[in-house]
Amino acid sequence: MELLKGASVVSAMNEEMKKNLSTLDYIPHLAIVRVGERPDDLSYERGAVKRMETIGLNYSLFTYPETITHNKFQEEFEKINDNNEIDGILLLRPLPKHINEEEIIQLINPIKDIDGISHKNMAKIFAGDKTGFAPCTAQAVVEMLHHANIPLEGKKVAIVGRSLVVGKPLAMLLMKENATVTICHTKTVEMEKECSRADIIIAAAGKAKMLTKEYVKEGAIVIDVGINLDENNKLCGDVDIVSIEEYASMATPVPGGVGTVTTSVLAKHLIEAARQRRSENKK
Amino acid sequence: MELLKGASVVSAMNEEMKKNLSTLDYIPHLAIVRVGERPDDLSYERGAVKRMETIGLNYSLFTYPETITHNKFQEEFEKINDNNEIDGILLLRPLPKHINEEEIIQLINPIKDIDGISHKNMAKIFAGDKTGFAPCTAQAVVEMLHHANIPLEGKKVAIVGRSLVVGKPLAMLLMKENATVTICHTKTVEMEKECSRADIIIAAAGKAKMLTKEYVKEGAIVIDVGINLDENNKLCGDVDIVSIEEYASMATPVPGGVGTVTTSVLAKHLIEAARQRRSENKK
Repeated sequence: MELLKGASVVSAMNEEMKKNLSTLDYIPHLAIVRVGERPDDLSYERGAVKRMETIGLNYSLFTYPETITHNKFQEEFEKINDNNEIDGILLLRPLPKHINEEEIIQLINPIKDIDGISHKNMAKIFAGDKTGFAPCTAQAVVEMLHHANIPLEGKKVAIVGRSLVVGKPLAMLLMKENATVTICHTKTVEMEKECSRADIIIAAAGKAKMLTKEYVKEGAIVIDVGINLDENNKLCGDVDIVSIEEYASMATPVPGGVGTVTTSVLAKHLIEAARQRRSENKK
Repeated sequence: MELLKGASVVSAMNEEMKKNLSTLDYIPHLAIVRVGERPDDLSYERGAVKRMETIGLNYSLFTYPETITHNKFQEEFEKINDNNEIDGILLLRPLPKHINEEEIIQLINPIKDIDGISHKNMAKIFAGDKTGFAPCTAQAVVEMLHHANIPLEGKKVAIVGRSLVVGKPLAMLLMKENATVTICHTKTVEMEKECSRADIIIAAAGKAKMLTKEYVKEGAIVIDVGINLDENNKLCGDVDIVSIEEYASMATPVPGGVGTVTTSVLAKHLIEAARQRRSENKK
């Protein structure tokens, strides 16, 4: 089984982006918006900051105490949204429960919504409109498949998980590539059977090492989107990689797989958003 | 094989709606907006008008010559949109090519968008948010399955066709009901095999009588969304109903199937839209 690591995808994407950047007369600027100090948020933020620095993109951190009121946060968020220097916004979620997250999300200017959380971007992804931004994790899976030159047209794909950040948008992205997609979830009967028919399996269930060899057809490609802690508190994916080793032809590791590509997609979307917005502004 | 006819679904829905209507102190009002005289539009319009009359709903026809300019039509459409008497809008499409349909669609007030064409409603259907309006034809399929008491949870569903008015929204609606959905399309390899694994097959390919017995597992339920003309210029569906007769346990006819239920869904959505908007207005 070949390991498809995030690092090679990231480095190819970075080169491409640096080339793109050198043709611009401005530097795209990301706003990272965080409320509170959730460890997941801090870890993703560190990754995003590092990626922006590596590629040479600008960023600003907007951080607020967990106790900020909804109204005050909304006011601050609107300032960022309206700030003409900002090209893209990464809103770390979930927000604390006393903040109406849905209300904040629907304020975001779709052209700055580089993580695809607004209705407009969701609808565009649903419609197969390539001008929309998909959630970065879903797009990261597509980037990995493209990087590895895996043909998608006519392929059977099983996606395990129907979340709005991975399963559903990924189904739309892969359908757009002419794959035949089946979406499995907790209520799916005989999930092993469903998965073991697939040429490509995407595990996005959020359940540590649930995907074992019984789910994998010989020669299948397995992409692991899960990030979990195993029984020893060690980071692991949704795939039991030892179990599938003899069956899959290719799989992505965790850590070091899809997760590492996500911030590269964020950077790619940021550059695209800056290009769209700044050319609109010129009109 | 049992025939699941639209008529019984329609009459049950009509009774339910009349009961709902009698609790309201207003009569919901539909705007039907048509440009030109396309026979398909005229036929759908007649069906919608008849349905509104049967149930006792108000409607107004707004019709424009095919030669109307984009700007003039947009102006007229905005008036309808802003008209406080109007609870829901049915925009007959496609519009003539010189009108920018996408621009018009995105003007529609989502609360009046009872055929689910706006970004907001699309995103809500994608997200599984029950406050959104799905396209009437997609919803009509769900109404038929519910009416026939067909369990959906854990069932394998194959949808043939990935359009934005049927295939995609229907996939979301059935996934919301916990079915395991596979979406097939023109690039699907071995489509017979995909379909013949399914407990429920939805044919929405737009290809006369393409779905024959080879696609149908014994005892499967087949819902035919197609409306085509056969070699003798007679109305027919996507399903070859003679061919599947001995295999399927239940199927919907064309004509007299899904198509007849669509305008009942339109009426149901109209009542719901009126309820939402008028209670908002009272706030």
